[in-house]
Amino acid sequence: TRVLVLNCGSSSVKYRLVDMADGRRLAGGLAERIGEGDGGRIVHTSGSGKPREQSHLFPDHAAALKAVAEELRADGLGLDAPGLAAVGHRVVHGGTRFTAPTLVTDEVLDEVRALTPLAPLHNPANVTGIEVARSLRPDLPQVAVFDTAFHATLPEHAARYALDRAVADRYSVRRYGFHGTSHQYVSRSTAALLGRDPAEVNVIVLHLGNGASASAVAGGVCVETSMGMTPLEGLVMGTRSGDIDPAVVFHLHRVGGLSVDALDELLNRRSGLLGLCGENDMREIVRRREQGDAEAGTAFDVYIHRLRKYIGAYCAVLGRVDALAFTAGVGENSAPVRSAATAGLEGLGIAVDPARNALPPQGPRLISADHSRVAVAVVPTDEEFEIARQTFALVHRSRG
Amino acid sequence: TRVLVLNCGSSSVKYRLVDMADGRRLAGGLAERIGEGDGGRIVHTSGSGKPREQSHLFPDHAAALKAVAEELRADGLGLDAPGLAAVGHRVVHGGTRFTAPTLVTDEVLDEVRALTPLAPLHNPANVTGIEVARSLRPDLPQVAVFDTAFHATLPEHAARYALDRAVADRYSVRRYGFHGTSHQYVSRSTAALLGRDPAEVNVIVLHLGNGASASAVAGGVCVETSMGMTPLEGLVMGTRSGDIDPAVVFHLHRVGGLSVDALDELLNRRSGLLGLCGENDMREIVRRREQGDAEAGTAFDVYIHRLRKYIGAYCAVLGRVDALAFTAGVGENSAPVRSAATAGLEGLGIAVDPARNALPPQGPRLISADHSRVAVAVVPTDEEFEIARQTFALVHRSRG
Ligand SMILES: Nc1ncnc2c1ncn2[C@@H]1O[C@H](COP(=O)(O)OP(=O)(O)O)[C@@H](O)[C@H]1O
Ligand SMILES: Nc1ncnc2c1ncn2[C@@H]1O[C@H](COP(=O)(O)OP(=O)(O)O)[C@@H](O)[C@H]1O
Repeated sequence: TRVLVLNCGSSSVKYRLVDMADGRRLAGGLAERIGEGDGGRIVHTSGSGKPREQSHLFPDHAAALKAVAEELRADGLGLDAPGLAAVGHRVVHGGTRFTAPTLVTDEVLDEVRALTPLAPLHNPANVTGIEVARSLRPDLPQVAVFDTAFHATLPEHAARYALDRAVADRYSVRRYGFHGTSHQYVSRSTAALLGRDPAEVNVIVLHLGNGASASAVAGGVCVETSMGMTPLEGLVMGTRSGDIDPAVVFHLHRVGGLSVDALDELLNRRSGLLGLCGENDMREIVRRREQGDAEAGTAFDVYIHRLRKYIGAYCAVLGRVDALAFTAGVGENSAPVRSAATAGLEGLGIAVDPARNALPPQGPRLISADHSRVAVAVVPTDEEFEIARQTFALVHRSRG
Repeated sequence: TRVLVLNCGSSSVKYRLVDMADGRRLAGGLAERIGEGDGGRIVHTSGSGKPREQSHLFPDHAAALKAVAEELRADGLGLDAPGLAAVGHRVVHGGTRFTAPTLVTDEVLDEVRALTPLAPLHNPANVTGIEVARSLRPDLPQVAVFDTAFHATLPEHAARYALDRAVADRYSVRRYGFHGTSHQYVSRSTAALLGRDPAEVNVIVLHLGNGASASAVAGGVCVETSMGMTPLEGLVMGTRSGDIDPAVVFHLHRVGGLSVDALDELLNRRSGLLGLCGENDMREIVRRREQGDAEAGTAFDVYIHRLRKYIGAYCAVLGRVDALAFTAGVGENSAPVRSAATAGLEGLGIAVDPARNALPPQGPRLISADHSRVAVAVVPTDEEFEIARQTFALVHRSRG
């Protein structure tokens, strides 16, 4: 049995076909530049083979998904081949309505559409992906897996902003959190790495990719996370500011004459590491910093300082911390980031072993020093696998 | 020798006359409803006497300051009486220009005025107060003491937001921090309480008044603070939201149709504890919560949760924490807040002794349990005294 995972963005489709017997990736790839005229292409990888690239014109998501289906068919794994159990869709915003993976119906689609004001860029693309996949195989179960769902357990004191209650409730303003499938997968994998039941361990997960978020997971239950109503809040990211005095928005509007839309674009697309040093690839920042580049140095230092504040904050939130897990592009690959983020935190029971930290990326592993009270781990995330797992579990359950 | 301290708000003047020989308050009071038509009044207290109240019409700050001068004269301590060494003025925003108490000159006044975009409500009133005081005693040194100055030592990684560098620098966007005289006074008093040199101790100061802010002070030097470019950022306050996803502003503008000015007013004046439960007096919130009021309960829990995150964050920032100090209206008086904010933080070395915590307000004192690694203190703040002290030190130095 197989599950096809689709992650539809506004101009791209990421996909993976997963063998549910062993979690193996049977095929996967990326279709890009949908609706952008020239330059569309699909990069497809069969099994553990080499990626092969094809140029295409993708006027819309339907065209791109048809190309994906073609590629899979060429591998003998088309949408019609027997054994495809379901399609699992990543959906960014589930609001307070969706707190678990959900079998798609017309009603569900309407409800996901209704959440568009909370995720104007993402939810419409996710909905389109679901619609096209349904039209290709109307008989197949389609499952929506929400980025926000793992954070649905946030206690009210963590989810509610200190905002006028009526305004907040009327406009659905609260902390939702994102990267949920990653935080869920990594917190569980971290428990497995420690050889312990997830229900027994308290984990701080640092998902450091181009987007970045932290979460505090107590016995498998998420109790706090750094992204908020949108993915803008929290840690310093590739292009997003993360936490900032909201009055900066008022000030730049009044004094700088920037419109609300321009400010949204500024904070989401031209801030973060990019805004600080003109670069959002952490590899490049580390390199420039080592060569004495002051702006790259500041960008790194701001990034690290803010990370350390979240580590400390979540130590207070959890009370007892068993593990700290680094994941995603930066977290899995950047020893300098992990080292700087944890230096001098012995007072919090955290100590990293430099030699272990310096080892090249591999599977899940510990990098803490032997005397560290808190286990420090590097755990590769796998959101596609987690979506497949949750999709399959739901389909299986509803059939069994 | 005496110093007169003036704290001029947009419609009020707080004042205190301090004897510099022993720090004693010789007189003090509050003139209210300046420029608001009827209902103006001054409440004056001589020495340790009873407050006496007088109705007035205060068309402007000049009228109010004249009434203050009258009251002082009635005590034999008028502006012309010998021994008045200087007037110390609280000024809210010193930008990056003013990092220490400053003798007022025409040029200084111009520079303080130029900072108005950063503190549109406060700096103009502060300037008016200085102008009127100068006109009453042109020969007397007037000293500006800035709320931001103690935070001028913030390292760049704490002061700089992850924002486009050019935009930030052009519009002076950075973390300035406020309540500086209080954080300075309390961190020093905490060291004194421990019988140690301030240069040796790392202190987390929690200033919890109607406005609220936290700071991390390493060996007497402030290295991080929770208020930002404006006093809106950080902890939950009486009427301010503190930290919030900046995208909430974008969302409420688009979906709720609120203007930027309305959003400014919402987050600064109708949020925080008031927004959460219709009440911003912590005494009342604690009382309602004890009676089972759910909204008061949530308001309390959100307030505490956010406080705990800052305690943890600043443990990470400081690495080694020697003391945690509670101050201002809530911090000095609310045992339930102190207890909830520190419960279960043994992992951070923090443990409060319930009996010590429950004692009624008094001078500076320790409330930590004997086994607590971190000393937990309640330290009454005294911003007026600190302004007087800094004013006198400057005048003295420039004369000596
Ligand atoms: N060796 C490395 N050192 C530092 N950063 C790395 C390294 N490899 C990848 N990255 C960072 O990972 C980021 C992408 O992470 P990823 O988790 O794929 O992001 P996302 O899924 O959010 O787009 C890139 O911005 C890059 O800077
Ligand atoms: N016994 C008490 N318990 C709880 N809160 C108190 C108590 N006494 C005073 N407060 C709180 O202190 C706050 C005022 O603190 P203060 O430091 O005077 O504020 P500010 O100077 O910022 O106006 C009030 O909002 C009130 O809720």
